[in-house]
Order: sequence, then structure tokens, then C-alpha cells
Amino acid sequence: MSESKKDYRSIAAGKKLQQNGKIPKEWLLSLKEYEGSSNFIDIPTTCGILNDVECKITSEYDATALLEKLKAGDLSAEQTTVAFCKRAAIAHQLCNCLTEIFFDEAIDRARQLDQERKSGKTLRPLHGLPISLKDSFQVKGYDTSTGLGCFVNEPAEEHSSLAALLLDLGAILYCKTNLPQSIMTGDSDNNVFGRTLNPHNTFLTAGGSTGGEGALIALRGSILGVGTDIGGSIRVPSLCNGIYGFRSSVGLVPHGGVRDLSVPGTDGVRSSAGPLATSLRDCALFLKTIMQTDTWRYDSTVISVPWTDLPSKKRLRIGLVRDDGIYTPTPPIRRGLETAADLLRKSGDVEVIPLSLPNMIGVYMDFIQYMALLGSDHYLELFARTKEPVIPSLAVTPLLTLKGTDLRGFFDLNVRRAAAAKSYLKLFLDNDIDAILMPVAAHTAVPFNSWSGISYTSLWNALDFPAVVLPAGKVQDSDLPDDISNATYGPQDTKVYSLCMVLLASLHTCLYTGPELYKDAPIAVQLVGYRHRDEALTNTAAIVDGIINGKKARD
Amino acid sequence: MSESKKDYRSIAAGKKLQQNGKIPKEWLLSLKEYEGSSNFIDIPTTCGILNDVECKITSEYDATALLEKLKAGDLSAEQTTVAFCKRAAIAHQLCNCLTEIFFDEAIDRARQLDQERKSGKTLRPLHGLPISLKDSFQVKGYDTSTGLGCFVNEPAEEHSSLAALLLDLGAILYCKTNLPQSIMTGDSDNNVFGRTLNPHNTFLTAGGSTGGEGALIALRGSILGVGTDIGGSIRVPSLCNGIYGFRSSVGLVPHGGVRDLSVPGTDGVRSSAGPLATSLRDCALFLKTIMQTDTWRYDSTVISVPWTDLPSKKRLRIGLVRDDGIYTPTPPIRRGLETAADLLRKSGDVEVIPLSLPNMIGVYMDFIQYMALLGSDHYLELFARTKEPVIPSLAVTPLLTLKGTDLRGFFDLNVRRAAAAKSYLKLFLDNDIDAILMPVAAHTAVPFNSWSGISYTSLWNALDFPAVVLPAGKVQDSDLPDDISNATYGPQDTKVYSLCMVLLASLHTCLYTGPELYKDAPIAVQLVGYRHRDEALTNTAAIVDGIINGKKARD
Repeated sequence: MSESKKDYRSIAAGKKLQQNGKIPKEWLLSLKEYEGSSNFIDIPTTCGILNDVECKITSEYDATALLEKLKAGDLSAEQTTVAFCKRAAIAHQLCNCLTEIFFDEAIDRARQLDQERKSGKTLRPLHGLPISLKDSFQVKGYDTSTGLGCFVNEPAEEHSSLAALLLDLGAILYCKTNLPQSIMTGDSDNNVFGRTLNPHNTFLTAGGSTGGEGALIALRGSILGVGTDIGGSIRVPSLCNGIYGFRSSVGLVPHGGVRDLSVPGTDGVRSSAGPLATSLRDCALFLKTIMQTDTWRYDSTVISVPWTDLPSKKRLRIGLVRDDGIYTPTPPIRRGLETAADLLRKSGDVEVIPLSLPNMIGVYMDFIQYMALLGSDHYLELFARTKEPVIPSLAVTPLLTLKGTDLRGFFDLNVRRAAAAKSYLKLFLDNDIDAILMPVAAHTAVPFNSWSGISYTSLWNALDFPAVVLPAGKVQDSDLPDDISNATYGPQDTKVYSLCMVLLASLHTCLYTGPELYKDAPIAVQLVGYRHRDEALTNTAAIVDGIINGKKARD
Repeated sequence: MSESKKDYRSIAAGKKLQQNGKIPKEWLLSLKEYEGSSNFIDIPTTCGILNDVECKITSEYDATALLEKLKAGDLSAEQTTVAFCKRAAIAHQLCNCLTEIFFDEAIDRARQLDQERKSGKTLRPLHGLPISLKDSFQVKGYDTSTGLGCFVNEPAEEHSSLAALLLDLGAILYCKTNLPQSIMTGDSDNNVFGRTLNPHNTFLTAGGSTGGEGALIALRGSILGVGTDIGGSIRVPSLCNGIYGFRSSVGLVPHGGVRDLSVPGTDGVRSSAGPLATSLRDCALFLKTIMQTDTWRYDSTVISVPWTDLPSKKRLRIGLVRDDGIYTPTPPIRRGLETAADLLRKSGDVEVIPLSLPNMIGVYMDFIQYMALLGSDHYLELFARTKEPVIPSLAVTPLLTLKGTDLRGFFDLNVRRAAAAKSYLKLFLDNDIDAILMPVAAHTAVPFNSWSGISYTSLWNALDFPAVVLPAGKVQDSDLPDDISNATYGPQDTKVYSLCMVLLASLHTCLYTGPELYKDAPIAVQLVGYRHRDEALTNTAAIVDGIINGKKARD
């Protein structure tokens, strides 16, 4: 390795300089104007960098609508790409959400696609659609540093399977996005690129690990991004940033060539790739387009379940889970969930069945063990290569203090995991439900370095059930703190508390102090479906989203 | 456990007595008549136990044709089931191929299905079709002993997922079939039920581990059976018994509730369930019917790839692998493969591309390690429970002498396995082939306790590519031994030889001594397709089978 690998600070300084150089001067914000602001959502359209057409292109469409315009020729790929590159540059200056920037290459490619269009060739399925990727997806010629000093200046020699597939499908890749050191925390912060801010409220985390995507999409510097999720890494930032995010069943979306930092060859609970977007139908567009292709040609690890359009159901049965028995939801989360459940009931189309989650603590403890099967030395070794310190949000998790297990211990985990998956399938079938509606977490986005647990999301990674996050409003002035719960451990259960304390080395609880600190923080709900029935879940979610966020809900 | 668990001999005696009692007296053969015979194939139709109609029912149809007759009402489920129960009883008396026998229950169920038919209900997809199962599939109320003394007289409390699914689909389960102690050898022999004989030549093994199915189907005591395959356990008996066998991609056919004897929770190379049949289209019928159902309702471990009818191709490109570089095929195997390849070439519809298999030895060594990740103590512990000895065919494999690995070693295996899967996918794609045609093994069925390796089959388990066995004739008088090869190790490669000797503790090579000993031994070829593209492989195999076994080949 080169001399520059010796210290992360010089590596980071060089990388940031290189990164800044990728943003044209005329796209630079006068950042001083926004000092004192804690909500950046409106800045992209008011800062004067985007012209009216670019504002319209980046503001008024979701990916589905934009793709229609692109295919119809109402918008050129070039003008669309330029608009999103500009807006991504603005978003990045505000929230520090990007890692690799390749606007020039993207605009060149857009011109080629415009030419391809003119030549009369059949349009590709994602013709000209800009898509952003989490940093961990390899894109040939660019780093896959994942925010680690040791991987900076090592450009990828080949595309990750998904990047290759998306390019073949006609998408335009233009940037990669920030994530936490270790890719395992709720704060997208690292020693190379620094912290991504939450554009809704800069005092709160943008979430992790796909937090760069979350902030970028909230500011519409992208309208369709791809993340990965092994414990909540798509869903947590979707919640924090008020967007949609879909954790698909493992393997349906090609994951080959993604750099995760687990020990190579790690098996057990696996990471899953999936979309983050501004609409639910864009999540469906992404999944459908991917699953309709021969994904197996791109990735020998993929599970090639083809998309087959299902008839939509008229009546739904939705299980309602209010509390996972480990972390009690804060008042705004409870309100958001109850409001959603009430709207479903009132719609007349949905039967809501309250449910409890069996054996949550056991599954969660095992999940945590899966995340550190060989302990954490491999993380520390990566950090040590450039002498980089542990980021605070990682230091508060148990990840670096957990002991590993052995092969028999791993098999024992597998036995319990298989039993849990069987019992949860039975729970779904016995109650004849289409999906479970529940919180994404016990709380909204929280202050920096205090994300307190991922039991609500990681459960579905452990079981490999697909799960989608739907926005459900924002914290309101009426969301007062109460004594019953503050995202502490199981309301009346000291056993839960002590188990959590054993499990989590230096755990912080998130005290909900009232709406002031959490101003504008998005609220969301999670909808969970059957494994490999991701398509059915998108259909169910479309109905639920229509009711809780559609016209009916606003009336 | 009860006192009877103390010694396997008393357990086995009791079990055999119970088993014999399940066969009605009027179905008993006069076995003395057949002393001296080594080929039993014609006995079921000549012994006089089956009447003319029963002979016809069990002899003239494959499952696809029989199902048409059943659905059309040309045959009742009852008469069909009785015929197959009778013929299975005959096959069992000849070859010792059954374990659990539940003819009475099957006939009762057949009557119910006949009633269901009369009631005008929509016919179930497999209405009245008798299907046999390898012993390792749990069927409620019957043992899943897998031939081990310690599991005898412990009736299953619930159906395996596949048994439940097949029953819901209208199939009739009537018996389970024999397998080797450990379910890991090429000889279906154990201390409870004894050895299954090969009905084509009783001096040769019936193969394993699904050898009971192989012999039963060869005698048409069943025309559709289900086995499992982790290293060749469907394909080896298909070869030995001259029938069709399909190892599907892992997870497509529900495997939940199958007793395998690996350490619970074992991950890595996984067992796959699949059909054994008398025609290729019956393998397709089985897979299509299963994959068209909501398998995910039956099994939380299933991979729910739905069957979607693919357009059939006019022209094929088939890779031809003559030798795996480890075991050199014997003369009849070479002849069978070359004849098949010649027929394909001459058909005008198929381009044949000679290929070599990359890194065979590495993949095979790793495969063997996957089979004993924690060593072999768990097998020995099971045997010790009833003091049963190791069967000879297990003693000659390396299974009981291999050392285990640790968690990091397991992950290292996974890394190499993923790299191999990627390189093999590339081999297929770079050569633009539909499938690879190759031997199933270096030899035909061999004398007892001398099966010498499973490199030709286990490769595709290691990579999880689907593979189907097609019969390709029999050993002929012209198949003389030669000096070039005798199913020894890689023709000119001493490195291969020494690697094999390191790998395999007390390995026997199979010397081909000429056609006398191998009289009537079936020859077969193996066709291998892309992972999760099992449907495409059935289409490809239909064309190949049509050419090598169809009208064209006979002309």
C-alpha cells in the first residue's frame, strides 16, 4: 500500500479535496446564508442554482413519472441528468451526503442514451433514469471506500452486479452516498467523509447505514437510490428522512460485488439490497424492473424469483404490532401508528388484527450475535490500517465489544433462527394476514450518536421477511412527552431491561423530551410481508399507503 | 428411551417383523423361484401377483399419462393405488427397497379421492397419483428412522413440508424407501432394513442415498418418487437403476421436515429435494406442480421461484465434459457419453462445445470438508445409541475420518465456494451454453461397498446448479476394459492421484473388469443447467432426451 495509507487524516483531506473538485463552481452554494437553519428541505429550490425547468424536473415527479417523460421524449436524458447532478451537488453541500461523484461520466452517458433514443432503438426499461447508489456498491473506476481510510484510492476494477445490471437497463449512475464507519450504525458518519446531516432537522441523525441516500433523496438530489439492509440500514434512514424504503427478501436484488465489512464468507443473517424513493410505486418500479431481468446472469448469488403481476386484493387483513416488548415507542411514534391503524380501519377495506411478536428477545439476542460471529477484530484491524478512531455512534453500540462464537455456536444460532422463521410464518398464516403494520423503530430520528436499538427492523432480517417503510407524518407540537415510555425498555418488564443491559454493552436510551428538539422529524410505519412474496407486499403497501398517505387520509 | 433402544439387533428384528406384517399374504412371492437370477426387472409382471389390469396400470404409463387417466376417470384412484401397492410389495420382496409401508392408509385415501371426484369438486393437480418418498421425509404417524436403530419406533408427529404439500395436491403416499446408514454412501444399506439390491444386476449396488427409490422405480413399484441430493443422492441411484432423476436448485422443492443427519443448523452446501421417475416429463410434472403452488405456505425455508412456462428453444448449445480430471470414466461410461454427443451433433439442432471443468480438485476437496464441518462425532454418537456397527460402504468413505473445521475455516470455504460459483457461471455464459452434458459418475453401478467418489455429481451441489440424469443405454458386450482408464484418478496426473489419496482415507477405485460383471448395468448422462433456472433445464433436457432416447435415436 502507498505511503498515504499511513494516516487517515491525510487520506481524508486528499479525498475531500478530490471530491470538492467534482462540483462545478457555478453549482456552489453560499453556505453562510443558511447558518442557523436547521431545516434544509426548501433550499434546493430557493437557492437559485437550479433554473425553473431543473426545479420542475427534480421536484415534480417521482421516478415512475420521470421515466414516462424520459421515454416519451418530453425530457432528454441529458437535461434530466444535469438537473439531478446539480441538485445532488446542492444536497451534498448542505448535508454532506455524497462519497463518489461522477457527474461528468453520467452526463456523457445521458447524451449517449439520447442518441440511442434518436437512433430508433427499443428504449431500455430504465432509459435515462438517474439512480444513486450507497457507497458500498462497486462502480468501476471509483472507490468503494465505505468511508474507511484504508480503502480510499483503490478504484473498483469491475462493477458490482447491480451497477452492471442497472446500466444495462438504461439507468444513469451519477453518485454514491455516505454511510457510517463499519456500515453498522444509525449515524452515517465516518473519518473520511464526515457526517451526513438530516435535512429535516440538522440536530438529528440522518440515520444509517444508508443515511447518505436518505438525506439525498429527502432533498430530491435523487429520487431513486439503492441501499443495503442487514439490520435496518435501508429502513432506519427512510424513517429519519421521511421517504420510502424497501428491504427486499435476501437475494432478490443482486448483492454481488457489494463491499460489506463482515468477515469474508460470513453466512447466517445476510444483507439485502433494495430501493429508497419518494414514492411507494417507485420501490415497486425498481423491484419489478430488476426482477423481470435475468438477474442470474449478473450474479451467481442471486435468488431469481421472477416478477409476476399479482391480482390486487380488495380486502386486506393487517396485523398490528404496537410494541416489540423491548423498546417502548415514544409518543410521536405511537401516535403515527395509531393514526395509520385508525385510517385503515375507517377505510372499510382493511381489517386490523392486534398481534404480539413471539420470542422477540431471543431473536434479537441471536441477531446481535450473528452480527459478530467472529467478534470484532476484523473491524478494528481495518481501522488500525490508517490509525482511524472509532466513530462515536459505533462506540455506543455493542458491536466492538461482543465476543464471537464457534462453529457449533453458529449452527445453534441457525437452529433457533429456523425455528423462529417457522413460528413467525405460522403467526402470519394462523391470523391469515397480508402483512404486519408496526413501528420502524421506537423513535424518530434522534440526536447524534444515540440511536438505541434496531429490534423493530432487525427482526425481519433475522427471519428474512420483506419490509417496507411508509412515511406517516411528522412530529407535531401536540406530541408531548409522557411518563409511560421514552423509548426505554419494555414498559413494565424488568427482565427485558436486564436482558438488554446484558446484551448491549454501553447502551443509550433515547429520552423523548418533547416536540421542540424533534421539530420536523418524520414519522413512519413499517409493513412486513411474507418471504419471497415481495411483490405481494408492494401491492399490500400500495393499498395501505393510499389510505394513510393518499387522498383519503388528507380529506 | 425405551429398553428396546439398547441394541440395534432387537430393534431391527422387531421393525422387520412389523414391516413384513404390512404386506398381505396374497401378495407374497415365492422367492425360491428366483434364486440364481441376477436381473429382476421382469419378475413383477411375470410372477402372477398382478392381474392384467394391474400389470397395465403399473407398466404402460408414466406419471403424466397415468394422471391423465386418473383425471379423466378412466382409472380409479383405488385401483391405481392397489396396483402400485402390490407392485411395490413385489419390488420390496425382491430388492428390499421399502422402509415404511402404509398401503392400507393409501388405499383408504384413494377411496376418499374417488369420492371427491364423484362429488364434482375441482380435481386436485395430482389427483390420485401414487408417489413414493425417501425415508427421510417425515410422514405423520410413521417412523423417520433413516435406517438408524436409534430412531426406530418414534413416529413423526407432523408431516414434512413436502408430504403435506403433496397430500394437499391430491397425491397418494403409500410407502417410504430405503437409504444408507448416514444417508451419505452409494450403497443403500443399513443395520435396520439391510441392503437394497439393484434389480438390473443384483451383484451391483442400487446406489445411494436414494437407492430404495431407485430400485422401486426401476421395478415400477413406483413411477414417481422423491429423493434428496447433497452430493449425488438422487443422481447416483438414477444412474444405477436406469431411471430419470432431477436434483433441483436448493430450496425450490420444500425440504422442511426432512431428517438429514448433519449437525442441526449446518449451513453451507445444502441438500435439495427432487423427483426420480421413469420419464423426463414426469420430473417436469413434479417440479411444475410443486413450483406452481404456494410452497412458501408450507415451508419457511423454501425458495419460492414460481414456474413460468418458457418458450422452447429450437437450437441448443451444449457443453461437453468428458472427464472431471479426478476420476477417469470407464469404457461404457465413455461410450454412452460419446454416443449421446454424436446423436446431438447429428440431430442438426444442437451445437456441442467441448469444455473443461475449472478447479475441480479445489471444489471437490472443499465439498468433502463441507460434509464434515464438525467432524463425524455426531454420526458415531447416533450409531452408538444402539451399538450399531458402521456399514461397510460408509467405512470406505472418508466421512468418518475427516476432521472438522472452525468458524473461520467455514467462512473461508464459503469464500472459495462463492468464487467457484462465479467462475462456473462465467464458464456457462462465456460459452453461451444452455447446459453441460457429462457423466453422472466415472462408472456405472459397481459391486457392493466400492463406490469410489462423487466428484461428478457433488460439483453441482457445491455450486448449486440443477442437474438431471438421463438414461443412456446399458453396458454392452462390446464394452471391453482398456488400459487407459479404469475409473482411476486423472489419466496422467499423479498430482490428482496424490491429492485424492490425501482426501480420501481408505479409497477404493473401481476397476472395470469388462461387461461380464456389469451385465445389464444402466449407463446414463448428466445434464446441468443454470441455478434457479430449473425450468429451462427441463426444457433443454426434453430436447436432449428426445434426441438420445427418443425416436430419432432408435432409428
